[in-house]
Amino acid sequence: MEKLHDAIRAMAWTDAGLELLDQRKLPLAESWLVLCDCASVARAIRDMVVRGAPAIGITAAYAAVLAARERYARQPSDWRTGFAIDMQNLAQSRPTAVNLVWAVERMQQLAFSLNGNPVPVLLSEAQAIHEQDIAANYTMGERGAACIDDGSSVLTHCNTGSLATGGYGTALGVIRSAWSDNKLNAVYADETRPWLQGARLTAWELVQDSIPVTLLVDGAAAWLMQQGRVQWVIVGSDRIAANGDVANKIGTYAAAVAARHHGVRFMVVAPSSTVDMGTACGADIPIEMRAEQEVLSAGGQPVAANGAQAWNPAFDITPAELIDVIVTERGIVEHPDTVKMRSLMV
Amino acid sequence: MEKLHDAIRAMAWTDAGLELLDQRKLPLAESWLVLCDCASVARAIRDMVVRGAPAIGITAAYAAVLAARERYARQPSDWRTGFAIDMQNLAQSRPTAVNLVWAVERMQQLAFSLNGNPVPVLLSEAQAIHEQDIAANYTMGERGAACIDDGSSVLTHCNTGSLATGGYGTALGVIRSAWSDNKLNAVYADETRPWLQGARLTAWELVQDSIPVTLLVDGAAAWLMQQGRVQWVIVGSDRIAANGDVANKIGTYAAAVAARHHGVRFMVVAPSSTVDMGTACGADIPIEMRAEQEVLSAGGQPVAANGAQAWNPAFDITPAELIDVIVTERGIVEHPDTVKMRSLMV
Repeated sequence: MEKLHDAIRAMAWTDAGLELLDQRKLPLAESWLVLCDCASVARAIRDMVVRGAPAIGITAAYAAVLAARERYARQPSDWRTGFAIDMQNLAQSRPTAVNLVWAVERMQQLAFSLNGNPVPVLLSEAQAIHEQDIAANYTMGERGAACIDDGSSVLTHCNTGSLATGGYGTALGVIRSAWSDNKLNAVYADETRPWLQGARLTAWELVQDSIPVTLLVDGAAAWLMQQGRVQWVIVGSDRIAANGDVANKIGTYAAAVAARHHGVRFMVVAPSSTVDMGTACGADIPIEMRAEQEVLSAGGQPVAANGAQAWNPAFDITPAELIDVIVTERGIVEHPDTVKMRSLMV
Repeated sequence: MEKLHDAIRAMAWTDAGLELLDQRKLPLAESWLVLCDCASVARAIRDMVVRGAPAIGITAAYAAVLAARERYARQPSDWRTGFAIDMQNLAQSRPTAVNLVWAVERMQQLAFSLNGNPVPVLLSEAQAIHEQDIAANYTMGERGAACIDDGSSVLTHCNTGSLATGGYGTALGVIRSAWSDNKLNAVYADETRPWLQGARLTAWELVQDSIPVTLLVDGAAAWLMQQGRVQWVIVGSDRIAANGDVANKIGTYAAAVAARHHGVRFMVVAPSSTVDMGTACGADIPIEMRAEQEVLSAGGQPVAANGAQAWNPAFDITPAELIDVIVTERGIVEHPDTVKMRSLMV
């Protein structure tokens, strides 16, 4: 199974440039885009070729290598000005996931400390970010699985697996680890409208791992809990505020409210690069509003009547008080608050 | 506006037979099927050509006319045996909506009391059921609207309009009436996966009435409430048990749990033909499980990976304690329980 996990990657650095698996086309087609400049990567992030907070961060790190390569080749004596502009544009490609800004800042800081050709060192750094993310996911997988009793069934939302990260996954990493440990009876996945990451991506990953997965429409999650079918909801995050409030895919908050109502436990799994101690609470996290057309169509087909409008926040905020445990590679935080988050991040 | 409401009808009796608007094709196409025998109508109900508990009841009443016409023409002296079989099959076409059984029983009881050709009397009865449903909807529209404060915004789930009833609608009738009374700031509609009745049908109806409608994915409803954007959730029902528990489209329960969490009020609008005093509580209501393929595809396109399973209950149960008010044509019931429901239905 280990081998299968390793088979799924959202991004790969090659001599040709940064290759991204076009996640918009999964599971019907596995097609890779080869991107050779930073602006193309920023566009790919905005257009959802690659998504998932950790995967966006890693992709941005590689994009910084592309930017440095291009800028240094053009102006070896003054590549930093153009590079800084590229980094600013890259950081603005999507607003909610903090991993993007985290990776851009880490790469830029390193870049500005370098003399001569910055590319080899930056590439090593991007690869280190990528490898550290995978390692963090395996650690989180173990830590999260340790929280789960034998014979549990779990519900997840969106995609938080290899496709959303460097590899293995955050919430889906925990599910993989718990499954490997024979702890799980059943894995349920919300389909996750409007992009259907649950149906298209999570199911695709789990089928490849031979982990049985049962999809449900997002509106059925509360009823699933009422029927006593799950003991845990396990999700990822795009940004965790200093007080433990969690931004994640739209629909996460609904699942958290329903989980609390039914006494189902709620676990958030994210690397420490997702924790933003500079944002005090969830209300301060910018929520990306995406195109109405994403809701007015389904499965690539228009579905709504002409003249209908749509409200399409891509994320919502789950307050810390609805969260039983946050799992990071640094450790776990039960019933998160500012004091506990600060201890974790010291 | 009155005129526009009247323009939308899910079914029509003509010399050719029973005409049904094929709701699976809306809003992209308005195509009518003409059905001349009872078995075809039962199939159309099962296959979702027509849906919505009151509309199913009215359709079944017309189907009983078709059955009587066919059986009486074939065997005038012993048409009742075949008619009874037809009625049994018709009643089993879908399990959850009690209006279906209600209409079948009403038509059969009348049919068996008749001598000679039963068709003219049965047709009058079906038309009376149809007209009474429309009248009930206008009454419920007024009663429900009276519960709503000026300047409110509302969220609805699924489709409960002209297409789901004889005309005008239950929950959507209340929204129409409240809009006519200038009470509403905004109307939000859950898209309502997997069949997307909100996006395809509710939006279509409201656009025709020039009532602005904003769609959202079902998973966003709780976040909409958290943002303070709605004061009421207004839904229909497929069956109301004697204690006030309500079966309705999957996702209704999630909305009710979220509404209670946020102090948003929750209204159920249904004619008394939807109240089933013979079913003690929600746990006794049969919940239809529909094909996995409905979840594994979206907008008519396959979306999930091969090998994924799906859990697809078509309905859920909202317990009476989460309901602020049930609106019927007989009157309204606040905080429903068995005693109050019994008083209503006496």
